[in-house]
Amino acid sequence: MPGNTFGHSFKVTTWGESHGKALGAIVDGCPAGLKLDEKDIQIELERRKPNNSRMSTKRKESDKVEILSGIFEGKTTGMPISMIVHNKNARSRDYSNIKDVYRPGHADFAYQQKYGIRDYRGGGRSSGRETVSRVMAGAIAKIILAKHKCKVKGSVVNTGELVSGDSCGGLCEIVIKNAPKGLGEPVFDKLDADIAKAIMSIGSVKGVEIGAGFSVSEMRGSESNDEYEMRRGRIRTKTNNAGGILGGISTGEDIIVRFPVKPPASIGKKQKTVTLRGRSKSIQIKGRHDACIAPRVVPVAESMIAIVLVDHLLRQS
Amino acid sequence: MPGNTFGHSFKVTTWGESHGKALGAIVDGCPAGLKLDEKDIQIELERRKPNNSRMSTKRKESDKVEILSGIFEGKTTGMPISMIVHNKNARSRDYSNIKDVYRPGHADFAYQQKYGIRDYRGGGRSSGRETVSRVMAGAIAKIILAKHKCKVKGSVVNTGELVSGDSCGGLCEIVIKNAPKGLGEPVFDKLDADIAKAIMSIGSVKGVEIGAGFSVSEMRGSESNDEYEMRRGRIRTKTNNAGGILGGISTGEDIIVRFPVKPPASIGKKQKTVTLRGRSKSIQIKGRHDACIAPRVVPVAESMIAIVLVDHLLRQS
Amino acid sequence: MPGNTFGHSFKVTTWGESHGKALGAIVDGCPAGLKLDEKDIQIELERRKPNNSRMSTKRKESDKVEILSGIFEGKTTGMPISMIVHNKNARSRDYSNIKDVYRPGHADFAYQQKYGIRDYRGGGRSSGRETVSRVMAGAIAKIILAKHKCKVKGSVVNTGELVSGDSCGGLCEIVIKNAPKGLGEPVFDKLDADIAKAIMSIGSVKGVEIGAGFSVSEMRGSESNDEYEMRRGRIRTKTNNAGGILGGISTGEDIIVRFPVKPPASIGKKQKTVTLRGRSKSIQIKGRHDACIAPRVVPVAESMIAIVLVDHLLRQS
Amino acid sequence: MPGNTFGHSFKVTTWGESHGKALGAIVDGCPAGLKLDEKDIQIELERRKPNNSRMSTKRKESDKVEILSGIFEGKTTGMPISMIVHNKNARSRDYSNIKDVYRPGHADFAYQQKYGIRDYRGGGRSSGRETVSRVMAGAIAKIILAKHKCKVKGSVVNTGELVSGDSCGGLCEIVIKNAPKGLGEPVFDKLDADIAKAIMSIGSVKGVEIGAGFSVSEMRGSESNDEYEMRRGRIRTKTNNAGGILGGISTGEDIIVRFPVKPPASIGKKQKTVTLRGRSKSIQIKGRHDACIAPRVVPVAESMIAIVLVDHLLRQS
Repeated sequence: MPGNTFGHSFKVTTWGESHGKALGAIVDGCPAGLKLDEKDIQIELERRKPNNSRMSTKRKESDKVEILSGIFEGKTTGMPISMIVHNKNARSRDYSNIKDVYRPGHADFAYQQKYGIRDYRGGGRSSGRETVSRVMAGAIAKIILAKHKCKVKGSVVNTGELVSGDSCGGLCEIVIKNAPKGLGEPVFDKLDADIAKAIMSIGSVKGVEIGAGFSVSEMRGSESNDEYEMRRGRIRTKTNNAGGILGGISTGEDIIVRFPVKPPASIGKKQKTVTLRGRSKSIQIKGRHDACIAPRVVPVAESMIAIVLVDHLLRQS
Repeated sequence: MPGNTFGHSFKVTTWGESHGKALGAIVDGCPAGLKLDEKDIQIELERRKPNNSRMSTKRKESDKVEILSGIFEGKTTGMPISMIVHNKNARSRDYSNIKDVYRPGHADFAYQQKYGIRDYRGGGRSSGRETVSRVMAGAIAKIILAKHKCKVKGSVVNTGELVSGDSCGGLCEIVIKNAPKGLGEPVFDKLDADIAKAIMSIGSVKGVEIGAGFSVSEMRGSESNDEYEMRRGRIRTKTNNAGGILGGISTGEDIIVRFPVKPPASIGKKQKTVTLRGRSKSIQIKGRHDACIAPRVVPVAESMIAIVLVDHLLRQS
Repeated sequence: MPGNTFGHSFKVTTWGESHGKALGAIVDGCPAGLKLDEKDIQIELERRKPNNSRMSTKRKESDKVEILSGIFEGKTTGMPISMIVHNKNARSRDYSNIKDVYRPGHADFAYQQKYGIRDYRGGGRSSGRETVSRVMAGAIAKIILAKHKCKVKGSVVNTGELVSGDSCGGLCEIVIKNAPKGLGEPVFDKLDADIAKAIMSIGSVKGVEIGAGFSVSEMRGSESNDEYEMRRGRIRTKTNNAGGILGGISTGEDIIVRFPVKPPASIGKKQKTVTLRGRSKSIQIKGRHDACIAPRVVPVAESMIAIVLVDHLLRQS
Repeated sequence: MPGNTFGHSFKVTTWGESHGKALGAIVDGCPAGLKLDEKDIQIELERRKPNNSRMSTKRKESDKVEILSGIFEGKTTGMPISMIVHNKNARSRDYSNIKDVYRPGHADFAYQQKYGIRDYRGGGRSSGRETVSRVMAGAIAKIILAKHKCKVKGSVVNTGELVSGDSCGGLCEIVIKNAPKGLGEPVFDKLDADIAKAIMSIGSVKGVEIGAGFSVSEMRGSESNDEYEMRRGRIRTKTNNAGGILGGISTGEDIIVRFPVKPPASIGKKQKTVTLRGRSKSIQIKGRHDACIAPRVVPVAESMIAIVLVDHLLRQS
């Protein structure tokens, strides 16, 4: 069973490789009658692009979205929305030297074992380029959430130190304000479980925590329990160690998600590895790469969480 | 869309409440011809039971599994395997006093908001009792993995300090030895994403990490990348920061998962809360409760990971 | 991927064999707050039982439903509803003689090929007994439909002639009155497509048609098109060749479904067949069997259609 | 929950409207290492096009497929295969007059009720143009089946008589030779159930039957049962009333499927209808339409059946 579709009621299917012709996303299940313009999606794509900071790749990604279906007279029709971004400026020649060798930290070895074939140009489907599709779909989800006054906003909490020829990791946080109450299903499809899956499905992410997260392991119940009180006529918690989710269901408090992003695997330093035939080899990865991917993961994570929230919103009958 | 089914090819559906008549699990998709006995499942149920340590509830849970279908002459037939445990020794009178009040840290408030009704006896479906079903299903998954010489083994890394009338959290780790290579699907259904969902779907778990996990945020690429080498004729990594998964696909190295477990919400200390009608109230939770749930979560987490692994094993065509 | 779950938002999972300990159904996704009593389900089970007519088996099926979860104080809680019927009066000795031989018209050969093992007692999972589970789930679906004043009612249109020692087929029709408008999804999950699957998933059914059905192949467009008119202030069609469904979506007109039921495969007449080892053999099926199954399929088909309708009702967001 | 995805292991997602920019299909789950060329898909698209017979529309559909992803050096990589056909020669002006009126026999009324908005140009998503996507996906499925020497081949059994200004229906049959044994799952996901859904999901199809189909309702068990015999060392049935499927599982005998196709709804004759505001009106549909759609449905039905077969082939673990 393949794994390129996410969600049940707001269903996102993505396709495309780093150095293929194009990348795309199909959003199936978007309610009819929603105003939608390519500009709404382009704004989010711009946030995902490498910027001019020292942390980003110098590769220019002139991603321009085109909507191919599902819109009529400026509004969604309830039919699947197909979006496409054509790949440009893909310097394939940068990658031909890694055809027969497994790059440390990359998916090369895993893909080769599983499929017996891989598109080695820029990582193919395992490339960070794949997240273009997620951001396009997430942009639509955000528009739906905005109608519920719900906002998904992320930031980089901190990063490692930049050193020439090496890369560094970072820690990110996403805060969801005004998440509708009651999202999430008991037992397996808990809202935090689906958020965890969504975040961990992003390449380079090695963990995820909600609310007080890992620190609960050192707390007492009297500390970690969030007591209830009335505030402005509504039932609220005094603290928010739960991170807005109890029993897998959103309570209306802020949902808080944190996750670590590993340092990009492509580094200029010499590394030891083996070839497809099992011979030892040293490699240095050339080309234009990000020194720290955390800032660029933020809009992707926001997108994934927005997709999860809308999916659960529409799952409710 | 409801959320009581997990998996695609090895599909687990669970049902039952803490103080209802029984709890059960249906495993659909178990290969035919597997030797299976109620004893195999009972062994895992015993591990989940409260033991006699200071950390566990004094409530006796005499859980006895019965297999109702899917077995013929001691072997699986490929048909759904229905398993049941009848509830006994459920002292409902302990819970009637919390009918109209939201217990801090419990799912009461979330369920009441979502459904407008809740089975308040012992937490109903949101109770830890629900994990009986997971462990029954996981026991079957473990038998399948054992045929591949794959073993899922967990432990409590550390817990907080026990103080009378309060509860404490803990940190757990699961190690998977000999996981088949190639498990996991690119993009959304990455093996680590599905493990993260599985673990976070367990009540009381507030985070999850794979391999080096959160610490990657402070690493450099030259540290976090696992270099390749040949060992005993096989391609192996020198280190295992990836935790056995690259690009969402298992590589054959040990898979390492860690997660924090929050302190049980039911404590004897006085806590502030509100009633269903929004009036302030103080409560003290009486009854027989666990002081630390981490040791009992371990076999549950092992079960969930075993289910994920077998599901991906059977997804491969 | 296994196939014992049906539906997405109203999800039905069934288990159990003809001569196993019990048969069951889990309904996951039933809305909370619905009054539900075992009696409501028992009524439908009674309709499914063999009656005293010449067409029915003399086997007594004293099916008594027990609800094990999902109900609290007489109402559904939104949690999975587990229902069970224990098998009684199963004379296993009737079946031991067919252990090593393929009965014509039965699933024996197909199961043996696919699984390499089969529960040969009374057909195991492929037995008509399996429909007990469908009827239990359908009973709940019917209660939900009744709240929308929608009714699913079937009948036998005609059957073949009964001849001693042989069996005969029949033709059935189900009419759905007051089906909510707008059910069904474009393209693959059309309402008629899901109804067709539901009906064809019942053992012994070899076809299905909606509205004018097969006769449209001999019509002209000017005949088969249903013209619109205003009736009592509502848009209605003058005729109903479409059978209440256009473009896969219900229009509010009566939905009309017809299907043929094959003669029961178990007959007293001598038949030629082969053994598991490929040797020719003649067999006569002994035991208590139905001469015509059509009347007993009607409540099963009603159940399946009710499940489809409720599933689509709850799929709408 | 939206309905534009079909299949579980061989998952097909389609998008696009009759008069939108393009139509497309994503095939997720195609095994890696399969030789695939745009030509293989183009051949099937040509079969779907209107031909020069009296039965077909004069609208030229110059459908040219482009593969956008999932192929590397001429072979599939296991990643999603995205295919696109751009719409050309779409004379939108033919359709503007039906903006405010419900055409008899079309999906107009149903869509307007469900979504409150519809793309009225040429039927939008409910148009027969949508089947372009199905044929593209089916072409890939056929290549996979060919590797198993399995062939899906359809024909028109008969059609009504052509009369100027009117349209006529037809009856089609698909025969599957060498279908792998053991396809299909017990109970709900029977192979015939999934075929029935696949066929009924095609616009204009009003019924489906397998093997002896509706005629079983008039048979006796001694007639409809297919006796077993040994032929060339293999277990075979003497007759094939079952149509190659027993208990929902393929037996290796030919699978035979028949279905009626209704006359195209667009006819030149005057018809009575109502407007969106409920006023009576007469309309005559102008433009270039098919007089009988049956011949063009054949490759679409072949495609859907091929998709079902491959999906079940890959579902087996």
